[in-house]
Amino acid sequence: MNRTQSEGIASIVRSSPDEITRRALIGAGMGLAATSVALTPAHAGDADVPPAIPEWQRAPGAPVMSPPYGRPSPHEANVVRRPRPGAPPPTNLAALSNTPLQDLDGIVTPNGLHYERHHAGVPAIDPDQHRLIVHGLVKRPLIFSMEDLTRFPSVSRFHFLECSGNSSPTWTAPKPELTVQDTHGLLSCAEWTGVPLAVVLAEAGVRPEAAWLLAEGADAAAMTRSIPLEKALDDAILAYAQNGERLRPEQGYPLRLLLPGYEGNTNVKWLRRIKLGPAPFETREETSKYTMVMPDHSIRQFNFVMEAKSVITSPSGGHRLRAPGFCEISGLAWSGAGRVARVDVSTDGGLTWREAALQEPVLTKCLTRFRLPWHWDGGEAILASRAGDSTGYVQPSRDALLKLRDVRSYYHNNAIQSWRVASSGAVTNAG
Amino acid sequence: MNRTQSEGIASIVRSSPDEITRRALIGAGMGLAATSVALTPAHAGDADVPPAIPEWQRAPGAPVMSPPYGRPSPHEANVVRRPRPGAPPPTNLAALSNTPLQDLDGIVTPNGLHYERHHAGVPAIDPDQHRLIVHGLVKRPLIFSMEDLTRFPSVSRFHFLECSGNSSPTWTAPKPELTVQDTHGLLSCAEWTGVPLAVVLAEAGVRPEAAWLLAEGADAAAMTRSIPLEKALDDAILAYAQNGERLRPEQGYPLRLLLPGYEGNTNVKWLRRIKLGPAPFETREETSKYTMVMPDHSIRQFNFVMEAKSVITSPSGGHRLRAPGFCEISGLAWSGAGRVARVDVSTDGGLTWREAALQEPVLTKCLTRFRLPWHWDGGEAILASRAGDSTGYVQPSRDALLKLRDVRSYYHNNAIQSWRVASSGAVTNAG
Repeated sequence: MNRTQSEGIASIVRSSPDEITRRALIGAGMGLAATSVALTPAHAGDADVPPAIPEWQRAPGAPVMSPPYGRPSPHEANVVRRPRPGAPPPTNLAALSNTPLQDLDGIVTPNGLHYERHHAGVPAIDPDQHRLIVHGLVKRPLIFSMEDLTRFPSVSRFHFLECSGNSSPTWTAPKPELTVQDTHGLLSCAEWTGVPLAVVLAEAGVRPEAAWLLAEGADAAAMTRSIPLEKALDDAILAYAQNGERLRPEQGYPLRLLLPGYEGNTNVKWLRRIKLGPAPFETREETSKYTMVMPDHSIRQFNFVMEAKSVITSPSGGHRLRAPGFCEISGLAWSGAGRVARVDVSTDGGLTWREAALQEPVLTKCLTRFRLPWHWDGGEAILASRAGDSTGYVQPSRDALLKLRDVRSYYHNNAIQSWRVASSGAVTNAG
Repeated sequence: MNRTQSEGIASIVRSSPDEITRRALIGAGMGLAATSVALTPAHAGDADVPPAIPEWQRAPGAPVMSPPYGRPSPHEANVVRRPRPGAPPPTNLAALSNTPLQDLDGIVTPNGLHYERHHAGVPAIDPDQHRLIVHGLVKRPLIFSMEDLTRFPSVSRFHFLECSGNSSPTWTAPKPELTVQDTHGLLSCAEWTGVPLAVVLAEAGVRPEAAWLLAEGADAAAMTRSIPLEKALDDAILAYAQNGERLRPEQGYPLRLLLPGYEGNTNVKWLRRIKLGPAPFETREETSKYTMVMPDHSIRQFNFVMEAKSVITSPSGGHRLRAPGFCEISGLAWSGAGRVARVDVSTDGGLTWREAALQEPVLTKCLTRFRLPWHWDGGEAILASRAGDSTGYVQPSRDALLKLRDVRSYYHNNAIQSWRVASSGAVTNAG
């Protein structure tokens, strides 16, 4: 069995593109990540000498269902959504809260930590009274209750949601104190379940002259956006569930539009109305807001697809490396245009790049976790990641992006993000 | 664009193996799932005549971060973990709670609804004080803090967990009132993140004579199980995160053993000790418990792999069909031996079977959502599902299973589950 064991270990150690060796791992782990036990060799193999029994093992713990809907450990009370630093106090009008990406692993965002961006707060909707109307250029205008909608054929898909204003604090000179929650936290990912919008539109019967639809939310802002009919018939979902359970109130309970890969704002929450028309409806949120300033100072509307982007979440701003040696660099990559094809990581501020390993499953329009083993030599380092997607598009540097947009652009900042590691181990935002 | 639309709709409608037609969908939906709007044709295309504004849209709603770690809607207060009907009240000693599968979609179980099975309650562990010791037949006994472990290379994988006592209430004559939460709710699924156990064992150096390991929890039961070293070196994970965030207290915070596909009990929670040895350690939980009674009345130990199994979750016990017509049959399939390869569904008590569609991604040792469109004619029906996995194994009927096990077996009941639909639409457990 010894040979098999060694092969098993070796194959795991070699699972990254970098081929860190068992020797390197031992060097990193033995010296830094683990402390030798104060057991003598005589004790080490003796089951009768267990380690000391901690206090919490000396008496029975809490019963099941305390509470019936569980909560995180009190020791994780710091892992919560937060507003941007310096933002005015949250109100029930326009406000946002960011996901603590620096504390999360994998790709799923727990529902309690999904980012928020509301324009008139979170309405308290009675699902039994909620209705969706489908009208306009349809053959049969229809109204659906939630019970109606959940009888239709359903789909479940993992997709990210990103506010188009995510990373807007990084257009200008970097503030070293910003964390990844501050810079990239308007980003979350869930398994969404609902009815394909195409199925519901087939029920209503789309008229030939229809080319766009209006989606309207049941919040006091009556959030409205125009969506190309082509997208509605492609992969749009009338979503009622999020990571298995019904949508959270702040994610549109009981119904939201889910437009995979499109900017968050178009994924209208508390969805109450879909109206088909021949052209865009030119609502406030696509004329005065959610537009981009181009280099010639013209304004571009309808910037739907969130371009390929990535960010290192560990280590990231506010983290501190304990000691030189092995350090796993880990982060998230995504693209509204398809699958993440490749992520490269630099530890020298972009002079050289190495390909990171992508954690399976790599799904379309979904977060992908990437990892790169790194030996930190204790000197200053600048960490950065660069994603490419299945269309061939590659995430740009800020300088390259600013050749395509005016610096007054606010939305769709998908520039490469850098973190500075000081020789003290402190990690800060390097823009 | 009209041609494209029609093709889009048609392709979605045909996405199941059953090729329900657009006509059939309209028949099902128009008559039953939707109510015609009371808009006149003149109003239907008029954006100036929106539907009535509900009360919750007349004033701003709740601000962001209310609370910072979010909760489900109060209208979903019924979607919680529950004990089995007739079980004694939960105590801080041995107890369990079941996941409300009848209310969930997709494959991810929200962390607050993950099933529980504890033997001495949930210990309140301080993660800064928690330690994992690795000793026994190793070259270098080691103690790890949580900070040590999270510095190692990590992996994230979606895997189900199932208590080996799941479905034990269905070995004998069916109780019609049982829901799928009662019969199959000791089953959940999450994206787990942690360190491959093989990497940590490589640090300690496995001695050639080692063949098994003991895993011990830091609960007052000191839950201990023996695990083959081969499994530890294959895909075992020292898991510290669950659906992105750190483990919930009732799932082993801050550290659990994750053995993909193995019976839940072996996935030791609150993991504090791993000891390598030459043979199984013959603990209480693998001698007096978690054994199976064979037809010759012998007792079989070490029944690790959870065999392929499936269950229809919608409609299921306690549900009620509103009216004849289209009904989507949906459920979960899984196998501890690999991937789900196929699920067949019967609506006539097993006389005939049709292949269900599997929702991508279909992952190894993970829940897989299956769906079948069905036209309920209003008569009595018996619904059942049957899973097959990538090894060729097919889920057995109860009669077939009882040829392989004594009826006094308690664990590993993976028999086909049936639900009876009465002509009233009421759905009950048919065993």
